[in-house]
Amino acid sequence: MSPTDRFAHRMARLKPSAVREILAAAERPDVISLAGGLPAPELFPSQEIADAYARVLRDTPGRALQYGATEGCGPLREHIAARLARRGVRATADTLLVTSGSQQGLDLVARVLLDPGDVVLVESPTYLAALQAFSAYEVDLVSVGSDHDGLQVEALDEALRRCPRPPKLLYVVADFQNPKGTSLSAARRAALYRFAEEHGVTILEDDPYGELRFRGEALPAIASYDTAGRVVRLGTFSKTLAPGLRIGWIHAEPRLRRALVLAKQAADLHTATLAQWAVADLLDRLDLDAHLQRLREVYWARMAAMVAALQRHAPPGTRWTTPDGGLFLWLTLPPGAQDDALALAALEAGVAVVPGCGFFAGEPSHECVRLNFSHPTEARIAEGVARLCDVIRRSAR
Amino acid sequence: MSPTDRFAHRMARLKPSAVREILAAAERPDVISLAGGLPAPELFPSQEIADAYARVLRDTPGRALQYGATEGCGPLREHIAARLARRGVRATADTLLVTSGSQQGLDLVARVLLDPGDVVLVESPTYLAALQAFSAYEVDLVSVGSDHDGLQVEALDEALRRCPRPPKLLYVVADFQNPKGTSLSAARRAALYRFAEEHGVTILEDDPYGELRFRGEALPAIASYDTAGRVVRLGTFSKTLAPGLRIGWIHAEPRLRRALVLAKQAADLHTATLAQWAVADLLDRLDLDAHLQRLREVYWARMAAMVAALQRHAPPGTRWTTPDGGLFLWLTLPPGAQDDALALAALEAGVAVVPGCGFFAGEPSHECVRLNFSHPTEARIAEGVARLCDVIRRSAR
Repeated sequence: MSPTDRFAHRMARLKPSAVREILAAAERPDVISLAGGLPAPELFPSQEIADAYARVLRDTPGRALQYGATEGCGPLREHIAARLARRGVRATADTLLVTSGSQQGLDLVARVLLDPGDVVLVESPTYLAALQAFSAYEVDLVSVGSDHDGLQVEALDEALRRCPRPPKLLYVVADFQNPKGTSLSAARRAALYRFAEEHGVTILEDDPYGELRFRGEALPAIASYDTAGRVVRLGTFSKTLAPGLRIGWIHAEPRLRRALVLAKQAADLHTATLAQWAVADLLDRLDLDAHLQRLREVYWARMAAMVAALQRHAPPGTRWTTPDGGLFLWLTLPPGAQDDALALAALEAGVAVVPGCGFFAGEPSHECVRLNFSHPTEARIAEGVARLCDVIRRSAR
Repeated sequence: MSPTDRFAHRMARLKPSAVREILAAAERPDVISLAGGLPAPELFPSQEIADAYARVLRDTPGRALQYGATEGCGPLREHIAARLARRGVRATADTLLVTSGSQQGLDLVARVLLDPGDVVLVESPTYLAALQAFSAYEVDLVSVGSDHDGLQVEALDEALRRCPRPPKLLYVVADFQNPKGTSLSAARRAALYRFAEEHGVTILEDDPYGELRFRGEALPAIASYDTAGRVVRLGTFSKTLAPGLRIGWIHAEPRLRRALVLAKQAADLHTATLAQWAVADLLDRLDLDAHLQRLREVYWARMAAMVAALQRHAPPGTRWTTPDGGLFLWLTLPPGAQDDALALAALEAGVAVVPGCGFFAGEPSHECVRLNFSHPTEARIAEGVARLCDVIRRSAR
């Protein structure tokens, strides 16, 4: 018998995603990609990053290249804690664990908290790779609907009745969620925390995009309501500095954080020491606020270009969200168009989009596609949307 | 109810290791540490690493800082495949997955292959953090004894009778294993592969130290016998370049490798793009053989210094291994001395060692301690061993 006839049961839940094929095709030079979730590479602070690596490798190579503590490097955690304080989150270096991107945060939280058959409440639709991370732990995902103000907190009681057992975790991206670009309203954030309190549910607040608000007032982090260790918060430098560094973090109350440290130790010992010290050095010197302001301006202009092109070209019956930040907007197709057929036809026409169906834990909707506005230039966005709208027109009945 | 009252069952198997406390104490400047598993930082090719990062960030920042493929960067996998070919392993870029250190390799292989209750055969004693990685998957570990020629292959039939169900995986470090520093003989390597064939067991060959042979002929990699995808091989640059980079790899047959890629995607998307491109660039230019030769010379001298000090100071009844490579030797205490009491007493006397008991999956032996010779200088080794032998003398009956 070959060993590969005998994968673990959990692998049955992990399927290669169709999105990967679209993303691969999206790399063809003739294709305008509105598909990925990539930040704009021309805005990476490359020179500053290069300087930080050079300094760290010149001044403290023995430390930066050696094994390090699983918790992560202290000065980096101090920087992250200070940043979180600005969102009202009572983080300290001792509530933080540095992770290899926030994807690893999802995995570690699932690993520490979830047994097979446990129930996780998720927004519908929600981040594809979070669904994948939870599924690897053989849990039951129960969906809660969303609207323009994010997860419908008032629908949670009905969702509870659909849970085969009391839920342990509720996963939410409150700011500019992936795939819709919508944000959870302030009233709903408070209500969500009360729900968690009442039902003994842990909230997993994933915040990859919160620093990318280009208009409107910041809304309170759900973790800012937390006085009882009910909210675990994930963050990352992938969208604010660069994804290729793979530096994210988990903020959790001390006992849970100790368990997460043990789990990470078994998973990969620790996140790259060199990258951690380089980012800590970078944050000592970089004007992060000025850098973020630049990102926000460019992304806002690109989002506006996308909306303008949609207003100009989209056939009747097409609708879209108009995000206040983040990387994505969510397009609802006119009747008759179907997301995955449309994505394939769009690829033929030289534009890549992600079909919406992959973002649903339960019964998928096929009415929507996700569009990314952070990576392509305004000109490419205008051309890509024009091509896409042609395809939509041909697909709609 | 607080969320942290409800950890997943798998967490019951993950205990904070006593070794961590010793390693923490070992950082005190008055303590000579023979405890860790750290490479010598003064031998890190820091300047070459700095140059590689600088080149990559100057020439291709957009690629090096962006998201990347889960499989890992192609040129890096080509380098690794070429290196493995020299050990007779038929690796290609398509059998390799880049991981965040080989600890992540352990975790991913367990994740893909092991269900709770599955049986893993392990050498006794063996690498502590491998035991930890497997334990997180709630498996049954069954120990097989070892001697100066490594795992006692002839004891496998007896071990099979102790297995509650047929074993799925056999974990082995064939070259200079951790903690003993011993190597599996050539005859046993071939026999081990035949055993795997006969019983449908997958061999997980973990090779962090194979490139650090300072004397004797290289022995065949177990994976070099493999024609049927029965051997999964882990490697890492942690001991040859620097651990702080966190670059390791898994070599596995294509179908298993595809499953490992899916598992890694859910676990952390991919290993840091920047570190991968930098190491690929480094390997384009660095004379790795010359660098390894230097490491081997220094480690050999340090091992020799340790053995000389033991010969001079160790009380009667003390025995030790004399490795041909790697980072560790294994000291058997004279009757009456007990490993963890001794490690605490040694710490009082200003020398840190790791008690042997943590390296056993089954009933622990308390007769041994692990000594590291790669990190301290020869002078510190001589002094540390002298202090240690004083403590042993006082502890023995």
